[in-house]
Amino acid sequence: MKKIFNPKSIALIGASDELGTVGLGLAENLLEGKDLRKIYFVNPKRQEVLGIKCFDSVLDIKEKIDLTIIAVPSKIVKNIVFNCCEKRVGAIIVISSGFKEAGKIKEEEEIRDIARKYKIPLIGPNCLGIINPLINLNASFAPITPKKGNIAFLSQSGALLDSVVDKNKLRFSKVISYGNEADVDLTDFIEYLKTDKETKVISIYFEGIKDGRKFMRIAKEVSKIKPIVAIKSGRSDKGKEAVGTHTGTLAGDYSVYQTAMKQSGVILVDTLEELFDISLSLSSLPKCENGIGIVTNGGGLGVLAVDYCFEMGIEIPGLSKTTISSLEKNKAIEKVINKNNPLDLLGDALSDRYAVAIESLLKQDNINGLIVISTPQLMTEHEKNAKIILELRNKYPLKPIICCFLGGESVNSAIEYLELNGIPNYPDVKRAVKSINSLIKK
Amino acid sequence: MKKIFNPKSIALIGASDELGTVGLGLAENLLEGKDLRKIYFVNPKRQEVLGIKCFDSVLDIKEKIDLTIIAVPSKIVKNIVFNCCEKRVGAIIVISSGFKEAGKIKEEEEIRDIARKYKIPLIGPNCLGIINPLINLNASFAPITPKKGNIAFLSQSGALLDSVVDKNKLRFSKVISYGNEADVDLTDFIEYLKTDKETKVISIYFEGIKDGRKFMRIAKEVSKIKPIVAIKSGRSDKGKEAVGTHTGTLAGDYSVYQTAMKQSGVILVDTLEELFDISLSLSSLPKCENGIGIVTNGGGLGVLAVDYCFEMGIEIPGLSKTTISSLEKNKAIEKVINKNNPLDLLGDALSDRYAVAIESLLKQDNINGLIVISTPQLMTEHEKNAKIILELRNKYPLKPIICCFLGGESVNSAIEYLELNGIPNYPDVKRAVKSINSLIKK
Repeated sequence: MKKIFNPKSIALIGASDELGTVGLGLAENLLEGKDLRKIYFVNPKRQEVLGIKCFDSVLDIKEKIDLTIIAVPSKIVKNIVFNCCEKRVGAIIVISSGFKEAGKIKEEEEIRDIARKYKIPLIGPNCLGIINPLINLNASFAPITPKKGNIAFLSQSGALLDSVVDKNKLRFSKVISYGNEADVDLTDFIEYLKTDKETKVISIYFEGIKDGRKFMRIAKEVSKIKPIVAIKSGRSDKGKEAVGTHTGTLAGDYSVYQTAMKQSGVILVDTLEELFDISLSLSSLPKCENGIGIVTNGGGLGVLAVDYCFEMGIEIPGLSKTTISSLEKNKAIEKVINKNNPLDLLGDALSDRYAVAIESLLKQDNINGLIVISTPQLMTEHEKNAKIILELRNKYPLKPIICCFLGGESVNSAIEYLELNGIPNYPDVKRAVKSINSLIKK
Repeated sequence: MKKIFNPKSIALIGASDELGTVGLGLAENLLEGKDLRKIYFVNPKRQEVLGIKCFDSVLDIKEKIDLTIIAVPSKIVKNIVFNCCEKRVGAIIVISSGFKEAGKIKEEEEIRDIARKYKIPLIGPNCLGIINPLINLNASFAPITPKKGNIAFLSQSGALLDSVVDKNKLRFSKVISYGNEADVDLTDFIEYLKTDKETKVISIYFEGIKDGRKFMRIAKEVSKIKPIVAIKSGRSDKGKEAVGTHTGTLAGDYSVYQTAMKQSGVILVDTLEELFDISLSLSSLPKCENGIGIVTNGGGLGVLAVDYCFEMGIEIPGLSKTTISSLEKNKAIEKVINKNNPLDLLGDALSDRYAVAIESLLKQDNINGLIVISTPQLMTEHEKNAKIILELRNKYPLKPIICCFLGGESVNSAIEYLELNGIPNYPDVKRAVKSINSLIKK
């Protein structure tokens, strides 16, 4: 598996220079890393593609090949797979569609059997490929190479992968379109990611799981070491039908999946937004015990946060005598009459008030994490608030801080500053609360 | 009430030039409309503020005053209200806090009784003021004047109002911070908005409702004419406590509110994001009968949309023979094997495929609205897709189209184009489905 994500040499079979083709997309993406590894193109109909010589067959390449990528019409995939096996390549990714999802089950089994006979792992068919941003490896036809980070994203849907990769906030260690899972399946990847030091969080979009028992066994193991967050589509009857025509997967009963995921320690979420909200927090913040503090300059938003915390079983400890007296001693905060959790700093709060409040709450033993809400009022110092939060995050690194800076243009630069420094910000109170909830050890 | 939103003359009592004060915020905001109406400042401690002469008392102003805004320490509010009444001003907004929310119930009743005796409507106390963007009237200390549109937003929380006003996408006809409701209450505003031609949707954040029967009677009437969307905070016990210290409101039992809102035809939502997602769709799109079409270039996202539709009771009619044959006849779409609803145009769909698909579905009788999903794939023509959607929206104006263009930088300009032209786009499939659901007549 290591060869798939760290190949020293790659052959692309079906390289093309025709605009808008998968063969060109793949060729361009692979060449991004041409100084880091050997790239070979195979296409008997071309002399060269993008200035790189084309071989007639993979068998004509003399050097060792760690990874081959096949993007040719489905009819000739079988032959090419066979050639790759004869060449004893390290691994094969079949991009081509037109297999199980198009009713061609036998054809899919044939290529799987060839690869298995030669003990060469085969990924796909009907997938987008894989990306390892950390070493500039884009062995996919996704139009954009994502930013380097510590989230591994696995998707049964190629389109979804594209849109996720194109989101600016998210940073990835691996991006994997696993397609029809003829040979290598979702669970194999999860098992590999267990010991991948660069991956902190595993995020999954799936429609169905091939081998439930195997998944549960591995997921249970892996989720003890790093969090797994997943979303399943094809929950309703009509959705299941649609899955059938999409990836040819058996979507199965959602309630069964819910139970299985819970037993495996996988966080199953409802929306894509939630998948990435939670992945972001899990990838950048420490886990904590239950007990959260809330600091706000808008009372109403503090109340909403409390409601959502209650719904999710998050405790909001009252302020201790020590905390209250430390707040009372401070001039910046004397206007704040109600010294509760949530702590409403009032609309005219300047940064000094935020600083005192945040630190006092972080110091309290049974407050293990913090949500900081800031709305753009007349005097609000967004950027100063962001800087203070970063300083206090560094001073109290074990207590996660999640922000909910609301507003438009006037707060954008403060939010950018927070995010650049690994402090997630969510534009809705519930999204912030859900995210901190995912950090709480339960 | 008309005088409140269309005053010909305004007096600000407590105008100030001191940085960071409410008195300065109000003065600056009011002067934005100084060419459209007379603005008077009152402050016995100043000769002038921002170049405008200060009167010692409102009684010294000879001209008629339609609206007075009071932003002075709570202790002297009573006297000022009395003076305003003696002056027979058209309406009074008391910005000052320090009344019911601070336990000063008697003081609040006193100012209410004075105003009622003189039959002068009094808004507040403890509020941010009101904004009528359509005539450049910002009689509030919100830091930003929102864009002109057709959503009326009423908020019991000032801070929340600030952050909403600062969001770029939302456009407002009225923005109202109604504070403690000593005299004029939420329901009075809703009743006024019923016949306000510039308001198409009424959006509300509230913590509690003063007079439940009155609210239900009026809301039932108004919601037949224009949609009312609302969010309530203070649902949990702990949340109710927090409400008490925030606005001094009795938050009440949430299940009672849920029933009351349903009976009144009010759409009660769970999050602020939902409040504004739904308000946006309701403000820009027509209502429709049940029966929705889904067009996508990513199968997985289409499946997710189906799941959410099922959850919300949205019907997804199968494609009729006429629709299928019109699709089959078209060259652009021949690669698409599965002609179903959702219609998966496949990853390599160009705009021509979107054009044929969208129009064919819109032509089908029992498809009354459309969700168009687009993910950034190798060849996706985001901007062309956006233009086609706009053209077809104009050709079929009675069938709402909601977009879900996913991705980051590469799709931003297409999304901007859609939004500028009144086609809402949501960055999550569920948010798009929820929004179209709010348009379905049930």
